[in-house]
Formats: sequence, structure tokens, C-alpha cells
Amino acid sequence: MNIEIIAIGTELLLGQSVDTNSSWLAKEMARMGIDVYSFQAVGDNEKRIETALKGACERSQAVLTTGGLGPTVDDVTRKVAAKLASRTLVYHENIAKEIEARFARNKLPFAKVNLNQAVIPQGAVIIPNPVGTAPGFIVKVGKSHLACMPGVPAEMKSMFEATVKPFLKELSPTESLIKSRVYRTTGISESQLNEMIRDLFEKSTNPTVGVLAHKEGVDIRLTAKAASDQEADTLLDGLGKTLTQLLPNYIYGLDQEDLETIVGRMMTTRGLSLALAESCTGGLIAHRITRVPGSSRYFKAGYVSYSNEAKTDLFGVEPALIKSKGAVSPEVALKMAEGALKRSGASIALSATGIAGPDGGTPEKPVGLVWMGLCDESGSQAVEYRFFGHRDNIQFRASQAALELLRRHVLGMALKG
Amino acid sequence: MNIEIIAIGTELLLGQSVDTNSSWLAKEMARMGIDVYSFQAVGDNEKRIETALKGACERSQAVLTTGGLGPTVDDVTRKVAAKLASRTLVYHENIAKEIEARFARNKLPFAKVNLNQAVIPQGAVIIPNPVGTAPGFIVKVGKSHLACMPGVPAEMKSMFEATVKPFLKELSPTESLIKSRVYRTTGISESQLNEMIRDLFEKSTNPTVGVLAHKEGVDIRLTAKAASDQEADTLLDGLGKTLTQLLPNYIYGLDQEDLETIVGRMMTTRGLSLALAESCTGGLIAHRITRVPGSSRYFKAGYVSYSNEAKTDLFGVEPALIKSKGAVSPEVALKMAEGALKRSGASIALSATGIAGPDGGTPEKPVGLVWMGLCDESGSQAVEYRFFGHRDNIQFRASQAALELLRRHVLGMALKG
Repeated sequence: MNIEIIAIGTELLLGQSVDTNSSWLAKEMARMGIDVYSFQAVGDNEKRIETALKGACERSQAVLTTGGLGPTVDDVTRKVAAKLASRTLVYHENIAKEIEARFARNKLPFAKVNLNQAVIPQGAVIIPNPVGTAPGFIVKVGKSHLACMPGVPAEMKSMFEATVKPFLKELSPTESLIKSRVYRTTGISESQLNEMIRDLFEKSTNPTVGVLAHKEGVDIRLTAKAASDQEADTLLDGLGKTLTQLLPNYIYGLDQEDLETIVGRMMTTRGLSLALAESCTGGLIAHRITRVPGSSRYFKAGYVSYSNEAKTDLFGVEPALIKSKGAVSPEVALKMAEGALKRSGASIALSATGIAGPDGGTPEKPVGLVWMGLCDESGSQAVEYRFFGHRDNIQFRASQAALELLRRHVLGMALKG
Repeated sequence: MNIEIIAIGTELLLGQSVDTNSSWLAKEMARMGIDVYSFQAVGDNEKRIETALKGACERSQAVLTTGGLGPTVDDVTRKVAAKLASRTLVYHENIAKEIEARFARNKLPFAKVNLNQAVIPQGAVIIPNPVGTAPGFIVKVGKSHLACMPGVPAEMKSMFEATVKPFLKELSPTESLIKSRVYRTTGISESQLNEMIRDLFEKSTNPTVGVLAHKEGVDIRLTAKAASDQEADTLLDGLGKTLTQLLPNYIYGLDQEDLETIVGRMMTTRGLSLALAESCTGGLIAHRITRVPGSSRYFKAGYVSYSNEAKTDLFGVEPALIKSKGAVSPEVALKMAEGALKRSGASIALSATGIAGPDGGTPEKPVGLVWMGLCDESGSQAVEYRFFGHRDNIQFRASQAALELLRRHVLGMALKG
């Protein structure tokens, strides 16, 4: 089975916006064992969209489009799809009501132009949009299936997962399937990791082993080819076991799991609670912890003591200590964590104080130096880190290290290495 | 003049690599006033590359490709280009020598396969590669000009600048250029905005007006076509003035500017300082404020009072008030802001308390309801918001609204509408 991906939007052709949707969809196709024939990007131009969609539908069994489903006059995907499918456009009362209701719920003034989004080619499968207003649709064009989704990545992704992916699975007759599993690591560099798993990397052919570095850490992807899901799982389990034995400390999760979710789950199942005292990370650790639904069960309070006065006010860090040791020091990190523990009544407190840059570094305390403190009823420890890169990278890497520190502490593991 | 851009490489179709070359080239084309008909991405497959290049050369006066010029068997761009141009491939002794010399200079082991890169369609204009080994070339295909460049962005960019750009300039008879400016808005929906600027949108042809919704808000893009940079600026200034008169409150910045940077700049120039009391946003507002380099000049402290106890501890919010009015209420939002102002000694304090979901909503207080409090020495106010979407969206939109609230407050503007 062949598919094509078409991104619609003049902003793409002007270079004002980079199309990340096509690449995301292509990755999904690879996982499903579906061959991507090509991608294209076309502007908001009826004729050109028609030419592109027509050609794609003639060549490929399915065509996925993103963009051009908004309510305004330059959003013409619906119209072109209907024309190619030789269908009329039908106004769906229930979709219109849903759109109006969404505006009412959000107390937003409603403009009639939004009802353009309730118009769908007759006979199409509707792709509900749980995140925004415009639904998508799947319509037959000749022997091909044309699936139209909005361009907003969050909307497109959730609609693809819920409706388009199952649809394509049914369409694609499976012979052999490709299944991947990602082992996520943090706190180890790509080259260190390559050194540790070099044999696996070179010798294993099924599953294959691939390594990809992200700002979160390094992902190890195992990709198995097998006749059945079960067989693929057996292959992945086998190599996965070897991998976890080689890297006992560094693997924190699988596939899409993120550290904040894993830490949250561990806190919940163990009945623990958390407080945070942040300086250089400026609330980022708290933000990541509270991104997770249900985090109110274990997150008590966060303190962003950005100024020295706030460190004194919140945690009783004495100005003399800050003066003698510096705000970025193990002593202040410990005081912050201990103060946060006491204030909040949480069972664990973590602090981070460092220099995020670009200014404020010295030869002894360069940009990227971060001290973290960790404290619970059994005692407290301070851990030193050095991060590299721009301010954004330093802040993010510090937040990742902080979450990993929590994970290891809760599991009773060594805090580093 | 029309051009098309084609990215070549199987890694693109597997989603393993995102094509940023096309977008970069598109921006260059826009600056030169050349219309981009479409982009495509195709795999390292001779037949498919041929189909794509043939179609593009039939439609457009010039076609730019990136990728597929490496030395290995799957690099077939040279071969396909020669076939379409009805030219033989010629081995260039001087290019071969240059390739060998480069390897010697870099003390790299030389493999004979690299000499494949010295083969160029007969009669083609050679595009020297000052950064890597593979040269590119420009060859006539029918009435079109096909320019083939490598996929490595640094190589492609320097080759485009030095050779392809001057070539296209000579080809393109008009000396007109295209220049864009983005007016960024927040707190107004795409359809409301369309309603307000409908006339502009429909009547203005130069500059044209385009609208694009992001999670940060809605961007309005003006695109002018003119003979000179100065003329383009005059056109953009003219329509921009009308736009700012139509939307006096909603526009917060231009082009790539973000709200946290703008708020930071305003705080710095006015000598103001800030404290934050966050509940539902869980530290995200503080994180965005502290992303900005130099934010320690105006950001005093942030408090993430996620639990009710933390609200009492930090801001003296009485448990009885939380019980009678609820944690999500104007009363508690005000107490939080007032408490944060007092604790921190900042000149402005902002609070946010709401229901980020997915759980915790009731019919009277649904998921997405957020109360914000704003407080300075002149008094305090509470403002109600309703956001929709998933938890991530609600938190982000609340953070955006909070920053906008600060912007408007500092500017003495109405806080909403």
C-alpha cells in the first residue's frame, strides 16, 4: 500500500512556516509498514490543490492532507475534495450545533463564517476534532481514499490517532509488520551510550537498533519485523532484556513516556508528595510536573525564588550565607530544599539553583553550573551538574536532570552515573 | 516566473529527517519576488524522481532540487537529470582532482566511490561546492532550468547564494520583490478577527492579507510586492496603520516577537517588577517569564500554590473562604495576587486559579474556567476566562492570557475585549 501526504497553505510556500505535520505522519506510516510515495506542499489555490490531489489520488491508495479546513474564504480543501469525489457539499446540522456549542461554552462571540466548517462532502466519513472546531473527513476519490485534516498539529495528531489510523489499518492488508519499541534514557551522552551498546548495535539485525539524541536524552529504538504482533513482541522483549541489563540505571521509560509522567506515577503509587524550590529553572520543573493530569494528588507547592530576597523570605536562607557561598552553591541548594520541605509539608523536596545564562557566569561558576538539593525525612543531599548550550537548553536539561534525580531517589538508585 | 522545489531522500519519507531546505529556499524565492508553485519530497527512487522532475519541469520555469548528489548507488539525481535533459554524463577530471584534494587536506581515507560525484550532465553549468565534496549543476530540461544541489543545508545554502541565486535573477525579468510583515494578536478568535478586518482581507491586493491561527493567538500577515525594499515598507506601513486602527487592543507584536519578551521589555524600561501566584498553570507563566534572558531584572518570585494549604501558607487565604467560594473564584484569585505582591515586594502581582482538567470540572465551574487576579499599589482586579481543549492547551492559553493581561495593564489598556 502506497500513500501520499499533501500539506496545504500559502504560508508554507512563502517559507514562513515549516511543515512538521508531513514528517510526523510519515513516521506513523513507517511504523504501520505503509510506504509513503511522496509529500507535497501547495498554496491556498483551488486549481493547484485540485491538480495535486487529483494526481495523488490516481497514484496512491490513500492521500492524507493537512491544512485548508479553516472557516475563511482561502480555506478551499472541502470544496476541492467534493469536486474530485463528484459529491455535493452537505451542511451538517449536528456539526454546526457542535461548533456553536463550543463557542457558547467558551463564551466566545460567534461569527456565522464558522458554520462553513459544518460543510462536508456528501457520503464522507467524518473525522471528529476533539481539540478544535473544524472536523476532518475521509472521502473516496476514484479508487483512492482522501483523508483531509486541519493543519494545527495538535488537532491533526489527535484526529489521526483516533480516526485516520484505524481507517488505514483496515485498508492495509498486513503480511509482515514492523513494530518498534523505544527505550528512553537520560543523563548519558550519545557517544557514551554507543560505546556501551556497540555490540548490540552492530550485531543485531532483527530487531535493528537505532539511536536518536533529543533534548530529553537519548532514545534507543528497537525495530522488529515479524509475521505477527506476538512474534514482534517476543523479538523486542528478548533484545530489550539485554538492553536493560547493559544499562540498568539510565533507562527511565518506553516509547512516548516522559519523565514527569513516570515520576508522577511513582509518587502516586507510593503515596509520596512533592515540593519544588526553583531558581535558575524558573518554574519549568513545576510546569512539567503539573502538565500531568492528576498531579494535584502529589504536588503540594512550588516556589520560584528568583531573587535572593525570595530565598530568604520563603526558606529562611540567611543573606550572609548567600554572600559567603553564593546563591549557586550546595549550601543554598540544601537550604532551599529543606525550606521547601518544611513549608509545604510534602514528603520530598527538590531544589535547583544555577546559572542559566547567557550572562552571570564566572570562571569558577560558569554558565550551565547547577546545584540541586534533595531532601526528605531521612536527610538531604546536594548534587552538582554542568549543562551546555543556550539558556533554553540549560533550563530544559536542568529540569530533566531534576526529574531523573527524583526518579532515582524514589527507586533508591545511585543519583548519578 | 514560477519555480518548484523538490527535496530528494528516503529519510524524509520515513519521517527520520525534517526538510528545512525547501522552506529556506521558499523564503529566498519570496524575497526575490519569484512565485513558488509547490514543494515535493520524494525518496531515493529513480522512477519516482524522474516522474516528479519531469512534471515540475513541464509546469515551471525553474526547478530546484536538494539531495541525492552523494557518492553511493542510491544517489541518482545526476542520472535522472541527464536523462531528462537528453544529455550524456561526463566525467570531469578537474572536479575529481578537487574531490581527492579535499580528502587529502582533511586527512580522510579516500574511497574511489567518491569520484562518482565528478560526473555531471554534459553542457550543464557547474555549481561549485565551497563547503563539501559534491558539486551541483544547472541543466536545461525542455524550456525549464533544473538546478540540483546537495541536501546538507550548509552546502546547499552557500551554493545557492553564490551560483543559483544570480542565475535565477538573470532568468527572472522583473525586478520586483515580495516582503512580509506579521502582526501578532491574542485574545481574539480567527473568526472574530476575520469579521473585524473582512474589508481589508477582501479588498487589499497589495499588500495581501492572510490570517493564521496558532496556540499563541492569530497572526495577520501582510505581503507586499514592490520594486524596492523601501516601496514594500511604505506599502506595509500604510496597511499596517489601518490594521492597528481597526484592532487597537489585540496586536501585541510583530513578526517573531513573543509576549514574554515584550512584557519583559516593558517591565525593564518602566522599572517595574513582577511576582506570580499560580495554581492551574502550575509554574508555566513563571517559566515563560524566565525563559527571557535578563528576566532576573524584573522577576522577583513565583509561587505555585497547587494545594489549598499552600494558598493559606503563602498568601493567608483563609480555609473558610476557599470552602465558601471555592479555590477557583474571584475572591481567591484576588487574595493570591495580593498575597504575592506583599510577600515579594514586587510592583505588580498576577495570579491564576482555575480548572485545567481533564477532571475536576462541575456544571457551574467547568474545565477551562480560570480566574486571574492582578494587583499593584493602585488596587486589584479579578478577570474571568474560559479556555478549551486539552489540559496542555488550557494551561498554555491561560499563560498567554496572563501575559496579555500584564501587557495591557502596564499600557493602561482595557484588560479584555
